[in-house]
Amino acid sequence: MFLTKVKSEGIAHISYILGDGDRAAVIDPRRDVHTYLEIAAKRGARITHIFETHRNEDYVIGSKDLAEHTGAEIHHGSALDFKYGSPVSEGDTFDFGDIRLSVLETAGHTFESISLVMTDKNYGDNPVGVFTGDALFVGDVGRTDFFPDRAREVAGLLYDSLFGKLLPLGDQTILYPAHGAGSVCGDSMASREFSTLGLERKNNPALQKTDRKDFINYKIAEKHYTPPYFKRMENYNLEGAPPLAEMPRPVPFNPDDVENAVESGAVLVDLRSPEAFAGAFIPGSLAIPIDMLPAYIGYLVDYNRDLILIPETREQVRTAVRYLIRLGYDRIPGYLEGGVHAWEVSGRRYDRIGTLHAKDLETRLKDDSASFTLLDVRKITEYESARLEGATHIFLGELKSRIDELDKDKPVVTFCGSGARAVIAASILKKHGFRQVEDNLGSMAACSSIGCHIQKG
Amino acid sequence: MFLTKVKSEGIAHISYILGDGDRAAVIDPRRDVHTYLEIAAKRGARITHIFETHRNEDYVIGSKDLAEHTGAEIHHGSALDFKYGSPVSEGDTFDFGDIRLSVLETAGHTFESISLVMTDKNYGDNPVGVFTGDALFVGDVGRTDFFPDRAREVAGLLYDSLFGKLLPLGDQTILYPAHGAGSVCGDSMASREFSTLGLERKNNPALQKTDRKDFINYKIAEKHYTPPYFKRMENYNLEGAPPLAEMPRPVPFNPDDVENAVESGAVLVDLRSPEAFAGAFIPGSLAIPIDMLPAYIGYLVDYNRDLILIPETREQVRTAVRYLIRLGYDRIPGYLEGGVHAWEVSGRRYDRIGTLHAKDLETRLKDDSASFTLLDVRKITEYESARLEGATHIFLGELKSRIDELDKDKPVVTFCGSGARAVIAASILKKHGFRQVEDNLGSMAACSSIGCHIQKG
Amino acid sequence: MFLTKVKSEGIAHISYILGDGDRAAVIDPRRDVHTYLEIAAKRGARITHIFETHRNEDYVIGSKDLAEHTGAEIHHGSALDFKYGSPVSEGDTFDFGDIRLSVLETAGHTFESISLVMTDKNYGDNPVGVFTGDALFVGDVGRTDFFPDRAREVAGLLYDSLFGKLLPLGDQTILYPAHGAGSVCGDSMASREFSTLGLERKNNPALQKTDRKDFINYKIAEKHYTPPYFKRMENYNLEGAPPLAEMPRPVPFNPDDVENAVESGAVLVDLRSPEAFAGAFIPGSLAIPIDMLPAYIGYLVDYNRDLILIPETREQVRTAVRYLIRLGYDRIPGYLEGGVHAWEVSGRRYDRIGTLHAKDLETRLKDDSASFTLLDVRKITEYESARLEGATHIFLGELKSRIDELDKDKPVVTFCGSGARAVIAASILKKHGFRQVEDNLGSMAACSSIGCHIQKG
Amino acid sequence: MFLTKVKSEGIAHISYILGDGDRAAVIDPRRDVHTYLEIAAKRGARITHIFETHRNEDYVIGSKDLAEHTGAEIHHGSALDFKYGSPVSEGDTFDFGDIRLSVLETAGHTFESISLVMTDKNYGDNPVGVFTGDALFVGDVGRTDFFPDRAREVAGLLYDSLFGKLLPLGDQTILYPAHGAGSVCGDSMASREFSTLGLERKNNPALQKTDRKDFINYKIAEKHYTPPYFKRMENYNLEGAPPLAEMPRPVPFNPDDVENAVESGAVLVDLRSPEAFAGAFIPGSLAIPIDMLPAYIGYLVDYNRDLILIPETREQVRTAVRYLIRLGYDRIPGYLEGGVHAWEVSGRRYDRIGTLHAKDLETRLKDDSASFTLLDVRKITEYESARLEGATHIFLGELKSRIDELDKDKPVVTFCGSGARAVIAASILKKHGFRQVEDNLGSMAACSSIGCHIQKG
Repeated sequence: MFLTKVKSEGIAHISYILGDGDRAAVIDPRRDVHTYLEIAAKRGARITHIFETHRNEDYVIGSKDLAEHTGAEIHHGSALDFKYGSPVSEGDTFDFGDIRLSVLETAGHTFESISLVMTDKNYGDNPVGVFTGDALFVGDVGRTDFFPDRAREVAGLLYDSLFGKLLPLGDQTILYPAHGAGSVCGDSMASREFSTLGLERKNNPALQKTDRKDFINYKIAEKHYTPPYFKRMENYNLEGAPPLAEMPRPVPFNPDDVENAVESGAVLVDLRSPEAFAGAFIPGSLAIPIDMLPAYIGYLVDYNRDLILIPETREQVRTAVRYLIRLGYDRIPGYLEGGVHAWEVSGRRYDRIGTLHAKDLETRLKDDSASFTLLDVRKITEYESARLEGATHIFLGELKSRIDELDKDKPVVTFCGSGARAVIAASILKKHGFRQVEDNLGSMAACSSIGCHIQKG
Repeated sequence: MFLTKVKSEGIAHISYILGDGDRAAVIDPRRDVHTYLEIAAKRGARITHIFETHRNEDYVIGSKDLAEHTGAEIHHGSALDFKYGSPVSEGDTFDFGDIRLSVLETAGHTFESISLVMTDKNYGDNPVGVFTGDALFVGDVGRTDFFPDRAREVAGLLYDSLFGKLLPLGDQTILYPAHGAGSVCGDSMASREFSTLGLERKNNPALQKTDRKDFINYKIAEKHYTPPYFKRMENYNLEGAPPLAEMPRPVPFNPDDVENAVESGAVLVDLRSPEAFAGAFIPGSLAIPIDMLPAYIGYLVDYNRDLILIPETREQVRTAVRYLIRLGYDRIPGYLEGGVHAWEVSGRRYDRIGTLHAKDLETRLKDDSASFTLLDVRKITEYESARLEGATHIFLGELKSRIDELDKDKPVVTFCGSGARAVIAASILKKHGFRQVEDNLGSMAACSSIGCHIQKG
Repeated sequence: MFLTKVKSEGIAHISYILGDGDRAAVIDPRRDVHTYLEIAAKRGARITHIFETHRNEDYVIGSKDLAEHTGAEIHHGSALDFKYGSPVSEGDTFDFGDIRLSVLETAGHTFESISLVMTDKNYGDNPVGVFTGDALFVGDVGRTDFFPDRAREVAGLLYDSLFGKLLPLGDQTILYPAHGAGSVCGDSMASREFSTLGLERKNNPALQKTDRKDFINYKIAEKHYTPPYFKRMENYNLEGAPPLAEMPRPVPFNPDDVENAVESGAVLVDLRSPEAFAGAFIPGSLAIPIDMLPAYIGYLVDYNRDLILIPETREQVRTAVRYLIRLGYDRIPGYLEGGVHAWEVSGRRYDRIGTLHAKDLETRLKDDSASFTLLDVRKITEYESARLEGATHIFLGELKSRIDELDKDKPVVTFCGSGARAVIAASILKKHGFRQVEDNLGSMAACSSIGCHIQKG
Repeated sequence: MFLTKVKSEGIAHISYILGDGDRAAVIDPRRDVHTYLEIAAKRGARITHIFETHRNEDYVIGSKDLAEHTGAEIHHGSALDFKYGSPVSEGDTFDFGDIRLSVLETAGHTFESISLVMTDKNYGDNPVGVFTGDALFVGDVGRTDFFPDRAREVAGLLYDSLFGKLLPLGDQTILYPAHGAGSVCGDSMASREFSTLGLERKNNPALQKTDRKDFINYKIAEKHYTPPYFKRMENYNLEGAPPLAEMPRPVPFNPDDVENAVESGAVLVDLRSPEAFAGAFIPGSLAIPIDMLPAYIGYLVDYNRDLILIPETREQVRTAVRYLIRLGYDRIPGYLEGGVHAWEVSGRRYDRIGTLHAKDLETRLKDDSASFTLLDVRKITEYESARLEGATHIFLGELKSRIDELDKDKPVVTFCGSGARAVIAASILKKHGFRQVEDNLGSMAACSSIGCHIQKG
């Protein structure tokens, strides 16, 4: 009997492959499905069933690719009319050796959301674990903001699923959610990735709202962002994403190739660190440090443009491709071989971003705050809980569309949690013609460390 | 926050490395410690503490090797006078970022056994998990047969630890035991490796004995074998095993080298499958199919002899070395390069083991059971629960010392669960001069499949 | 500048990827092309050209698959009308950074054979190396037996290519042939894989025939076998093999699945060692020890049947699949999970092969050679150079079609170089109803070792 | 028969392991010897002999470590009194299966230098290859500047070795040198790593000096740098380096740890790219982009100081450790976990390096060259062949000792081949109190690309 967690870094997505004897199932597969095939092969098992806990909105589901490789059947909840696979309903069961999976309809996050309850046939009827999809996480519960005109209804549905169906499975039930900390599907997930229903019942903040109305109000009050790429993911995952026969393999570009690509409309995505981007960058390129790629590319780049990567190393290209295809970005024809260094030695112009230390920022704010814009690009929830006085807040994901709110002729200092999102913002400002842009490397973290005056609450 | 299970196949031992931020702990490290160093390095953490849940008797603990590499402190229970490390007592706590480990004294399996309770500082006081060593497993509880003259006392201690200390941690607590199915430390462990205290409370057979006296009687009635190598393990783990600076690297031997080694007292251990051994083997060699190596080498070979391996592939040599050093067998100077094939082409004599199909065995038993010995080498518990009529039972681990009970001049058919232990027995008989030896490939499993007459209970 | 040899074990095929800066070429790619993509990616180069030295007859060329992945152009000699790619002629040159490849038409092995001469633009005009395909090997030259009615003509062409074109490149030229020892494309290749034209000129036996007529006679006198699968390879490689989008992934079969497959016409291919097969095998299965698979499957199994693998380990399945697809065997739906052991525990019948030691064989030959058939299945060249008196010779590749020459009711002892081909022969005899079959494990090698009487020359 | 090149990137050192059957030899092993053990194990061979072509001065030889693991004998030339191993002399031969290695005394680079001539016993007496150590490279010959007072003598010795011993082996001989392009042991090595004596005879520039006196004058005129660390290497390699039982494992440091280490005398080595360093760096740290580490650490850091690494990624730490131990730098207690980002969020001060585009540099040189120092830190040979007018030349390796030649109060623009060595120089200037320092990213390469005015010859 085996159960392996397959974690997709970046989108903090967790899928599962489990099996017993020579049969296995996969729950919420990602698009690069070879991992599941490898695990199954090592175990001597064949994947016969694929379950989708719900129509995922934050990444491309790999069910169809995986089914293609294995002949497995795809199942999802019956409350949505998927264009592929077959629906399952409360109480349906599937056996994999001694493992039994039973369907529990747990609407709320979406209407068709299901959970899968796992029992061990040798070990009585008490659930061993439950795969909750986006209904319940470690430290958080699912978002209920996707149907704004039915907001109270769906929050109520989630309450019913959590308190009426999931928690009654018993404290002993191990929790297997579809996301961990860092996901756009919840702000409060714990960095710990293992938990049980009992532990959540006792400590998950949302589950302390045991009164239905309280719970609904609690959920209604939450503030979430919805990246524009969610729309495409929803379509893909409803209709079946185009097959990813094979990972895109961006080829080495030289500076000439890069210039040609840009002329044809490609976007240059610079994957390097904030410091490296600040040190030298290709004019017009968009900074997205590689760890930020999964969370922000969907806000910043359209699907109908080629992406040319500007990496620190070739290994980074490989990682970026994996991140990108999971979000449906498959047009990645090339990368700049040799990175910015190759650009420099070609004699082409490069640009820089200024930096400003937290101490100096504080001084400048005190002495002459009107002379510059302090642009805070964090989420509104972060901003509301703690901020520097005098900051202008525009969430990074909205900066492009709201850029006219800023005075182009005034110096700008970009600010975020620690300086990474700030460099993305800085690169956007540069692309839009702002000339004096500085990144406050360290940002709020540095400010806290040195005891700047911070407004809270 | 991370927690990684490191499983040592063969001995079915499970150790753990866990950490948060840049600090990590290891619980019950095995002797080949590089895995822990790799995991810690990947996480950007340093290992500062090593915990031993008890003086392990079934493998060499790697604490001293790991401490050497890391400078970490070693801790174990205070009820035994270890020659290294420092003792800890009930209530001692150790913090690794947001993880807190608290010591619980859980005597029973041994007197100094401790468990380590894990809480998450961000998530209240309810335990997240507990590392129970050999006190509690998935589906079983610890053996209490190591102190035969204090048998009831230790069984009672285990009862107190389980019902008085562990179960009260709460159903939500995830169970992290030191062994999984296949270990010599318990017969009834589940093949499922994940569980919670709640699930065990409800379904673990031993934990259904909620009355103290019932529980003691239940434990007293168990039958266990104690391999002779346990003695050495106990000494090693009390005094600190000799450091394993580096894996032994057996060099390629040719048939001449092998013969010379045998003359100098080396044992030939043939790692190949029962079928291959039956097909052709080097006279005098001991069959131990590689998967059987961890469970049976300790019964069959003394520590003071060199081991020469007869492998199917070079990869098998590597696996065997890993298995052997975990049990303290470090004298492995060579292996036969080219395997039995090299022996054959050298023109040397090889021998064979006969085989007998279950159907034919049944017929022969019916027709003429007196004409041969049917030797069942399974554990007494297996034998008692189901056996063929007329079988002679000698547990494989005792065959060498009880071999005189068998008639050398009578044909012998060796028998076990499926034919693997039977080939080990066959090779021992061959070494001791039995001439007519057949392995019932398939053994009890085949007998069940074809519906032989089986005596039960 | 880089040049990497990619060796395909089994068929002893050698392909090459070479490049400089960001451009690379591949010569004679195999069908599993990911290796080339990986190497190119690591080097930061893109593969722009693929060269085929000739229409290979012993494996499926991967040019089309590789071109699909990379957009590279495919080139081959102009003397054959390939259905894909574009022809090149003597003197055509291709540059990859500082590397220049020039085409040399070197007919003989086939009419369209080309060689590629490599020069380094920074290092004068003297060739650095030459890719000779099947024209010249280390220790041997190409076969010239594919056009039997034009035998002298093609041998003469090869002479002209070798002495008129290749050797004149100069002693300093490094030799990069398309095959190494073990290939069916030549019997006399050296086990050393690195050489130069100078070294070959001085020591290659065939190149000592400096007189054209002598050379032709020497070639004409050679004896080669042509496996039936060559026909399919030639068609594939002329018209373009079906794309191998992905490695076949045989799924785990249980004994029931295996029986069903056999009923539907599948062939069971047992990959285990001769000893293991001799110990126990599934009746009706064909023994081909994994190392023999590439050399003999093409003689023994038709393309229009499914192959079910009987492995020793799961890793062996993976290796076998790689071997098989290179020869165009893509129908591999499953393998027996658990191997022969699974068969045994299911209670099904298994069979055995007897074994006979060389010493006993000698005795039996002396005492009663008429009572049994000693079947030598080696190549005719091996047989002619050294054999046991009284042996019947049928080459293994012809055994199936000539089986009626043998007396089914007489015991047979199979014999080869060391016992591996003998077990294949034994399994074929068993399939054809021979009942008394013994494998002389060790065979000629053992006979030599113990000083049997051997007839030579 | 096998021969595998083991290349140590960075120092561009090439070692070899070769063998036949179950015996193998290693030539000039590096200090991290596990690679050889792995290769030998995969081949089923044991390493019985280790050869040192000469007392290497540019890295720590791993002979003693490897001998410790294998029991192999170590051999070197007899003209130097090594404190370990045993001397060999012209004509000594060693057999490894069919491979024969014969010693050729080829003094010149050093007095005790030997070459090893390889023949294949099955293939006549013509050498197959020769391992030339530092006597002959692809495109260059060994340095002869280590004995300045006997300069002509040693150059003459090298002439005799090359023309009297090596070239006479024949054009067909494959060349296996101890270094490739990028090594400090020769400036003119080709980027191509494969060659033959014939090719070198015809094209190697040094070998065109066929007159002994010409050759000596040619060698005498060469200009080489000798890094200070060579002294330690020579001692190590004469007396036997301290064993490297195990790779150093730097542990994660936080900013506090880093500050403490610096106070105790540690050096901070920043491994990141020039751009990242220019963007933000820890005051007082020394920039050595990781690819520059092997070539320059030996000039810049004493052996008696701890090194704390400032990496871009954890993988970089691992690479750096490998580079460092090969040069004998074993004191690497820690690295800054989280890199410069961790430093920033701690609120600590960071510094920056300015950058100057080649075009702007040209303008500034034209308009006001007196206002700043243009510091060219390339090798004297590079400088002499092409330079910007007005540049001050100080070789990077000598910058620390000659820093007083520069005016601290004048702005400095650092300059090299492409901007990497320039950032090292910039960091040194910053450490020494220069305040206005700019790196000309792109440097000479960019200047050439855009057509700056360059002085040549």
